[in-house]
Amino acid sequence: MPGQNIRRSFDQELRSLANQIGAMGGHAERMVEQAVGALVSGDTELARIVIENDAFLDLKEREIGENAVAIIAKRQPMAGDLREIVGAIRISSDLERVGDLAKNIAKRVAAIAEVRQPTQLFRGISALSDLALAQLKEVLDAYASRLPDKISFVRDRDEDIDAMYTSLFRELLTYMMEDPRNITACTHLVFCAKNIERVGDHATNIAETVYHIITGATLPAERPKEDMSHRVTAPGSVQKGG
Amino acid sequence: MPGQNIRRSFDQELRSLANQIGAMGGHAERMVEQAVGALVSGDTELARIVIENDAFLDLKEREIGENAVAIIAKRQPMAGDLREIVGAIRISSDLERVGDLAKNIAKRVAAIAEVRQPTQLFRGISALSDLALAQLKEVLDAYASRLPDKISFVRDRDEDIDAMYTSLFRELLTYMMEDPRNITACTHLVFCAKNIERVGDHATNIAETVYHIITGATLPAERPKEDMSHRVTAPGSVQKGG
Repeated sequence: MPGQNIRRSFDQELRSLANQIGAMGGHAERMVEQAVGALVSGDTELARIVIENDAFLDLKEREIGENAVAIIAKRQPMAGDLREIVGAIRISSDLERVGDLAKNIAKRVAAIAEVRQPTQLFRGISALSDLALAQLKEVLDAYASRLPDKISFVRDRDEDIDAMYTSLFRELLTYMMEDPRNITACTHLVFCAKNIERVGDHATNIAETVYHIITGATLPAERPKEDMSHRVTAPGSVQKGG
Repeated sequence: MPGQNIRRSFDQELRSLANQIGAMGGHAERMVEQAVGALVSGDTELARIVIENDAFLDLKEREIGENAVAIIAKRQPMAGDLREIVGAIRISSDLERVGDLAKNIAKRVAAIAEVRQPTQLFRGISALSDLALAQLKEVLDAYASRLPDKISFVRDRDEDIDAMYTSLFRELLTYMMEDPRNITACTHLVFCAKNIERVGDHATNIAETVYHIITGATLPAERPKEDMSHRVTAPGSVQKGG
């Protein structure tokens, strides 16, 4: 039956696309984990490896994009299949960005290792990263298993990440105020924290894409939350006119 | 001639997609311009408008994605047409991110307006934003005109943005060191500067997509440059063991 054969080899192509996404996801998770590990331990060699490893995700994103377009051109897919393919393009782009964020953390390791750091700050960074990585793992599992039930939790828990990031932001400002010698490390750390918070956002994006792939429906566009760090002013700041 | 009619109405759909991108582009440019304007003048009302205006880009990105997928399903396009449509998805995603970055700047306006700011810092932010906006305008013109000649310049000039951002980062650290009362404003401003630098990155992404749409070829993946702020430590930082 030629029709069945075509369908079978098409399914094979879709599975291969999903496997490539799985490989990207595992790689991106590892990069974040290692970047934060390098940061906490001041391990500039590990940081160098993370930076080098980012090229894999750039390459994979490009490959997935090219494969996806080739499959569309060849198979002219409809409905669910098309969602699957366009979804793969979107997820690969989110994962590529997660890699960039990990790289960005890794790039700051040397500058932070060079100067005095209040080590208690690393605890907050580690906890934030644990949350973001748990989210990422969950959405990648949902993508692999095609089970949508966990997806709404991912979005809910993104609020926890935002809240933790905002409190870390405030803490970092306070350390800078207390002792100007903390300024360099804390400024870099505030970026690292922001990068981790963004990993959580990308996990949420992926959750939305996975939901769309599985159900064909769209989670409401409105996200209930956001990080509140943009409103934070440190207690010691001079108020205008003050 | 039904074939000609089909082609004509297909071309019409492609033009409509390109027009939607053009509208998103103009909107995104305006948002960045207004966000930086609000920042420099401490205009929290303008900032509020920018934040509200972001919803338009989110909606448009979604619409373009849906239109693009519908066109692919209906027309089953090949080669250049398919590049055009997939390119529109990519560009809309970059423009949506530019809007997010403008919104992020706008959200910090209130916190910065509340505290003491060294006003000379705004000059650097304005100059950085002028460069990034010029880049964005150039790539959107290249997209609209389908003339690839300016595209390589966009990438070259992204280096200028990175260099200017790195020097601004250093300057901001120095102000924080000089006077802890600058810390809150400078920490928010360093994020604003980073957001503007990222607008330049998205302009570069768009340049790469436009080049691919027009020529079918890919600019080399390797970008020659990056911002160097991750290496910056302020002169007054205590070195380890120091």
